[in-house]
Amino acid sequence: MQQAEHVLSVQGVKRLPYYLKFLKELQSKGIPYVPAAAIADSLEIYEVQVRKDLAAVSSLPGKPRVGFSVDGLIADIEHFLGYDCANTAALVGVGHLGKALMSYNGFADYGLDIAAAFDKDPALAGQRIHGCEVFPMERLETACRERNLLIGIIATPAADAQTVCDALVRAGIRAIWNFAHVRLHVPEGVLVQNEDMAVSFALLSSRLAKTLRENE
Amino acid sequence: MQQAEHVLSVQGVKRLPYYLKFLKELQSKGIPYVPAAAIADSLEIYEVQVRKDLAAVSSLPGKPRVGFSVDGLIADIEHFLGYDCANTAALVGVGHLGKALMSYNGFADYGLDIAAAFDKDPALAGQRIHGCEVFPMERLETACRERNLLIGIIATPAADAQTVCDALVRAGIRAIWNFAHVRLHVPEGVLVQNEDMAVSFALLSSRLAKTLRENE
Repeated sequence: MQQAEHVLSVQGVKRLPYYLKFLKELQSKGIPYVPAAAIADSLEIYEVQVRKDLAAVSSLPGKPRVGFSVDGLIADIEHFLGYDCANTAALVGVGHLGKALMSYNGFADYGLDIAAAFDKDPALAGQRIHGCEVFPMERLETACRERNLLIGIIATPAADAQTVCDALVRAGIRAIWNFAHVRLHVPEGVLVQNEDMAVSFALLSSRLAKTLRENE
Repeated sequence: MQQAEHVLSVQGVKRLPYYLKFLKELQSKGIPYVPAAAIADSLEIYEVQVRKDLAAVSSLPGKPRVGFSVDGLIADIEHFLGYDCANTAALVGVGHLGKALMSYNGFADYGLDIAAAFDKDPALAGQRIHGCEVFPMERLETACRERNLLIGIIATPAADAQTVCDALVRAGIRAIWNFAHVRLHVPEGVLVQNEDMAVSFALLSSRLAKTLRENE
């Protein structure tokens, strides 16, 4: 695939699973091409939005009157979402948050999966939670490398997060989704995405405060 | 307080608790004024950044050579964060995610608090989890109104989320923090902030896929 030139917004990423679902329905019916307008109608969004989203994830040209290759779009969207290399994660920390993530049913829509979980509590080792096995921490590196896992999810207490982060990096993890309320230090080339619940709460609280002030 | 003219970034909101902490230390020592440079030094950030952040939350003028009023800044930051009206929430859904939120220790840094929790499982009613009482759903409206709660957190399965949302709105809730993987419908004037874990995971996955492509 050539490098797509447009950048996809967060809203755009949210639409991708819906495109995929619709395209796979067409594929299963043996339909080879689809016009952007038909995708737009099906998802109840503007055609110009569909064209922008597709241009961001695919360099396939739409053919006049025929539309886009269904197989081609599916491949490009899956490639963009990382389904061929970056869709499975290792989770560390099987407390309430870890269990909530393991049982979260929204990931499957994006083809995402927690492939292995780890906890320092030996009592948890060997358990299966929502189909996912829990390993002791000593198995982190081998289990990640065996499964070629590149994404690590940190759902431990803040005090353990940096140690866990270092272990994940040693295990070959290239991207970290951090739920701990702490700033992580990683080597260059390792991505970190912080999911700071307190900041989200504070943002909502400040938005509400602003609304209340305006209505006073 | 006059309306501040600047808009604060997410990163800016993240810095506010650190400002507050530092300012309260000064307050406790009886120091009435602080220069922006001193705040910047203490937090190891640029003075220009401090000035921008403060301008977004406060219309207090800094006095030459003396700096900003410590009491005034504290009041304005707390007001911006909604500490006087919008810092406590009702949580609905005391499963793994709900318990994870109730035990999350980052909220206190922002003066945020889950003041009451609700679950449809009668077995949970009356329990206290991390100091917060769990009520049966029938108590939602009275408990929220008694405590003047304006923020509702939805941590239920997606199938229950809209029903819960409607009940929260009837109970006087003005802002909803939604963890369910579903789009909520609310009356005009009610804020919704979606915390969609699957979208966050997909964003990280697509960022990693992009990095891997670039390094190929």
